[in-house]
Amino acid sequence: MSKNAELIAVGTEIILGDIVNTHSQYLSQKLAQLGINVFYHTSVGDNPARLRFVIEQAVGRSDIVILSGGLGPTEDDLTKETVCEVLGLPLHQDAEALRRMSAFFERIGREMTDNNIKQSMVPDGAVIFQNDRGTAPGMAVEKDGKVVLLLPGPPSELVPMFEEQAYPYLSGFSDAVLVSRSFRVFGVGESLAEVKLGAMLAGENPTAALYAKQSEVLVRLTAKADTEEKAAEMLQPVVDELYSILGDTVYGEDVGSLEEVVVPLLREKGLKVATAESCTGGLLAQKITSIPGSSEVFECGVVSYANRIKHELLHVPQELLERYGAVSEQVAAAMAEGVLRLSGADIGVGITGIAGPGGGSEEKPVGTVYISVASKMGETQTKRFRLGYGRKNEREQIRMASAMNALDMVRRLLL
Amino acid sequence: MSKNAELIAVGTEIILGDIVNTHSQYLSQKLAQLGINVFYHTSVGDNPARLRFVIEQAVGRSDIVILSGGLGPTEDDLTKETVCEVLGLPLHQDAEALRRMSAFFERIGREMTDNNIKQSMVPDGAVIFQNDRGTAPGMAVEKDGKVVLLLPGPPSELVPMFEEQAYPYLSGFSDAVLVSRSFRVFGVGESLAEVKLGAMLAGENPTAALYAKQSEVLVRLTAKADTEEKAAEMLQPVVDELYSILGDTVYGEDVGSLEEVVVPLLREKGLKVATAESCTGGLLAQKITSIPGSSEVFECGVVSYANRIKHELLHVPQELLERYGAVSEQVAAAMAEGVLRLSGADIGVGITGIAGPGGGSEEKPVGTVYISVASKMGETQTKRFRLGYGRKNEREQIRMASAMNALDMVRRLLL
Repeated sequence: MSKNAELIAVGTEIILGDIVNTHSQYLSQKLAQLGINVFYHTSVGDNPARLRFVIEQAVGRSDIVILSGGLGPTEDDLTKETVCEVLGLPLHQDAEALRRMSAFFERIGREMTDNNIKQSMVPDGAVIFQNDRGTAPGMAVEKDGKVVLLLPGPPSELVPMFEEQAYPYLSGFSDAVLVSRSFRVFGVGESLAEVKLGAMLAGENPTAALYAKQSEVLVRLTAKADTEEKAAEMLQPVVDELYSILGDTVYGEDVGSLEEVVVPLLREKGLKVATAESCTGGLLAQKITSIPGSSEVFECGVVSYANRIKHELLHVPQELLERYGAVSEQVAAAMAEGVLRLSGADIGVGITGIAGPGGGSEEKPVGTVYISVASKMGETQTKRFRLGYGRKNEREQIRMASAMNALDMVRRLLL
Repeated sequence: MSKNAELIAVGTEIILGDIVNTHSQYLSQKLAQLGINVFYHTSVGDNPARLRFVIEQAVGRSDIVILSGGLGPTEDDLTKETVCEVLGLPLHQDAEALRRMSAFFERIGREMTDNNIKQSMVPDGAVIFQNDRGTAPGMAVEKDGKVVLLLPGPPSELVPMFEEQAYPYLSGFSDAVLVSRSFRVFGVGESLAEVKLGAMLAGENPTAALYAKQSEVLVRLTAKADTEEKAAEMLQPVVDELYSILGDTVYGEDVGSLEEVVVPLLREKGLKVATAESCTGGLLAQKITSIPGSSEVFECGVVSYANRIKHELLHVPQELLERYGAVSEQVAAAMAEGVLRLSGADIGVGITGIAGPGGGSEEKPVGTVYISVASKMGETQTKRFRLGYGRKNEREQIRMASAMNALDMVRRLLL
């Protein structure tokens, strides 16, 4: 039988709305991988009575309770003490936790206080998750068939502690393993992807889930089995089917963005790219150069907002600017070819469009964007896009979709 | 006496970790403004028994319960029906909600289904919050001294409905008004700001809270009083004190970023800026051009990753590149002056540095960045920065801090 879990985030800053509770999402995803059901998320402030109430209720109704926060050195931090009260467990000092805490303070060059020593107290019989990134150790206690985990609040401490120590510990309570693979899809909208994938989305094991991301789609395939190997094996035919349906609109597996795929592709082929941007204002160059090592593949970028710059720097003929306007197929191509010549790169990209809110016309409404890719390998390709939906405040979305389409055009050129 | 509230987010996608629950943060902040205490946040899936349990408990222990989600047209959407069961309230059809829903479907060109008609059913005696952005109306019901609000799940519907309808409704239950003012501070770290503000942070009314944002600090001052006017009056001396302590490191009030301040400042003064970026790879240009109307103040940007481009395009003397290296005070200044000449703008900004992970040396470790501002109004100013802390994966943080420091140098030039 699957175990049921619930999550409790402790901290007045959460219920005041000063911070958003991201742990509940993170931990829910991880527990789903383990095949452990999560039924409730609760957030409660640093108040002894309410905290005790929430813990008692959770221990009463769930097999596994995971608390985050409230393990700090101050008087407000009560999670551990309250859990021990509810479960009737005495506390003792953990020598290893104290040693690590001393070493931590030495490393950051600060003095350890008596309050910190309170953090090294642990319940009898607890499994300790040592903390190399902060002062509070995490821990797990078992009592009367219930399992309670205590994790530190800062994400920089909770996440690695969970990955390295709590996840392996919890896998002992799971009777199934979930294996997931995520695929990024560009150039197919969410609704169309839904229609195309059809029956796959109704599958129960493996399951397929579709998520709309900014201007792209994420497909997550998940199989559940006794072992990781079996789950992976069940997954493979669905992955093959996904590729046969969506083809090269699937641009990567377990990657975060198009630039994470395009930069290594350029490096592999030993090619360099240069950019000439108008409406995206440097966003494309910024995306490419966000990838470490991009200096090997990125030559130069020009943000030519003014027509004069398009002409003087990129040598876009004045005649084209006058005859077709700055936002036109002809100017996009001249920008791509201009920056290719200027930079000596192998591929040149030109983007010109209307990001709004102003500047649209009936013929060329806000969201009209021309993207051109010129290269030493073949003819210049230029496409017209209609991005945005005519809603308010779409400037950033239009700029982002423009940069992504440019990256996808480069990717397709390289394939 | 202050009322106590609790928040319930309904939706299986939340407890599966597919989406993060941002409503709880948003609503907590809004309720804090009204002086209403929030004691619990709960998330629960679309499960009738667990949803009912959570609603019963909330109505039992809190004066005000705000539910979000589960008002959709499908069978899974049970929030309204469950609340009515718990409170013993019958449902009837709301003609106005039905009319608006029909109009909504006509506008988006889709057919209304019987399921949608279920969404126009409302509890007897409910206050209806009409929904112009989606299909489900929100509502508030009062019974036996308890108040229950139901709001739609999509943030694009919940936020405007709350601002325009639920907030004014709830203000009737508040015996105090909170007025907050937020200030953005650049160039003073969190710890130093804490020391400088000292006693202000210990104040009880007005309160002062300090939040570390990426490379900057946010200070929120909040006063509580019977009326908005009184609260605003109480706030003013603390605002004055803040400015007297932090001076011009406070770059704006109720703004989101430095570029939101710098672009209007440039426009006001009728000045244009041009950028020459190396390690930031277009991030500065992209930040400036993210502001609508920036085409009036932004002339051109060059992303000169390669030395050849620095020389050929920006006319950085080969001698400087060889003698001092691409990452140097001299090259930053030559880049700023080069782009100033090239573009004909009034202000030129040059950035060169080492964003990592590779490229650092003992003399110039990762995080070393030179930023230079040249202008037609005076001498070129160049500063050396040491950004980043020597941690892993700091590339994006170093790039962001570089772009922000460049914006701040431009801001200070304009003041």
